[in-house]
Amino acid sequence: MALTLYWGSGSPYSWRVLLALEHKGLPYESQLLHFDKQEHQSPPMLRMNPRGRLPVLKDGDYVVFESVAVLYYLDVKYPAMPIFGSSPEEAGVIMRVICEFQNYAEPSISRIVKGVFSDEVAHAFEELADAMHIVGREARTIEGRLSKEQWVVGERYSAADMVIFPWIQLLRRALDRSAAAELGARFLPMERNYPSLARWIARIEGLPGYARTYPPHWPPHWNQR
Amino acid sequence: MALTLYWGSGSPYSWRVLLALEHKGLPYESQLLHFDKQEHQSPPMLRMNPRGRLPVLKDGDYVVFESVAVLYYLDVKYPAMPIFGSSPEEAGVIMRVICEFQNYAEPSISRIVKGVFSDEVAHAFEELADAMHIVGREARTIEGRLSKEQWVVGERYSAADMVIFPWIQLLRRALDRSAAAELGARFLPMERNYPSLARWIARIEGLPGYARTYPPHWPPHWNQR
Repeated sequence: MALTLYWGSGSPYSWRVLLALEHKGLPYESQLLHFDKQEHQSPPMLRMNPRGRLPVLKDGDYVVFESVAVLYYLDVKYPAMPIFGSSPEEAGVIMRVICEFQNYAEPSISRIVKGVFSDEVAHAFEELADAMHIVGREARTIEGRLSKEQWVVGERYSAADMVIFPWIQLLRRALDRSAAAELGARFLPMERNYPSLARWIARIEGLPGYARTYPPHWPPHWNQR
Repeated sequence: MALTLYWGSGSPYSWRVLLALEHKGLPYESQLLHFDKQEHQSPPMLRMNPRGRLPVLKDGDYVVFESVAVLYYLDVKYPAMPIFGSSPEEAGVIMRVICEFQNYAEPSISRIVKGVFSDEVAHAFEELADAMHIVGREARTIEGRLSKEQWVVGERYSAADMVIFPWIQLLRRALDRSAAAELGARFLPMERNYPSLARWIARIEGLPGYARTYPPHWPPHWNQR
């Protein structure tokens, strides 16, 4: 086994895989690529993933990409510390919650994050407010799950947590900008609006190895307020 | 085991699960719901899936939805005739190809199908042509895979085939409309433009049980020209 992860700082897709590798305690070589230098589009990277996207996981001669496929591969190959459950029923719920998040929450979160970081809030306010409305509804569903259990699905940290968490952190970081204050008024502070989600974030931030997954270009103090 | 599948005719998401159930040879009760009568939004259906979407699979008291999660559950619960591969490496590629199809092809195919069936071709031609351009690129990638192998991933019919096939059929059916002739000119006939894909379609149409998965409201002769 010789695992190498090629990843980008702040990419929620990359973050998912880092969380999984740390959780499983698998030794891996960390190759942080710089989007601004187009390192993810270099010829060797394009040979592994012709789409030039991150993350890419190399395991010996084997290559896999697309974050959910990487999580799945890791779990089938290295089944200790399972992240897709320990029964068919649990596996089904974990994958269902992942699909729901991807289909119904991710497009809106992605739109908001992109809008805020490209300074579009003023002229695209209506569109972004509609997206926040959808995100609020999905976040309430997740809040409901977390009000009953420690983790998004059941009693154990799973791929569902790993898929959702990086996008929530990215959303928080976007809404924390002063230009997004009105947009995020019903979302932040999460301690008040989504207390179970806030406790879940703190729980993941407290996991061993979390610091190694934290985007290196983000201010280290940001999540320690 | 008492499997019941709630599904809708022509829904590509439902079709995927029908293909999997037939492939695995699992006995199931087929509950065809009618979208036009809002049967998928009835109170008993909303109790199983609050989003009111199909397919929904019931297995005894257990309920799972979101098509890829249903395929995954079925494979973990009933591992004979595996659809997610027989090694971690194969599992990773199958899931990767599924993720790629969902992320890069499905939104454009869905836009085209919706556009054609809502008679938007004339006034949204540019947008639909852009979507066709993306679909053509993704179809060429799949054509490349199928020019080397019988199935989308490797030597066996898998969840990757089941995820992709219904959307290709739906796309063919949309582009077959006279209003879509120009839009589909480089796609149809598939025998000429995508010969390996065309052979793959015929291969799936020849599988035992295929007739039971074919949308009952589609003309029976349509795919036998």
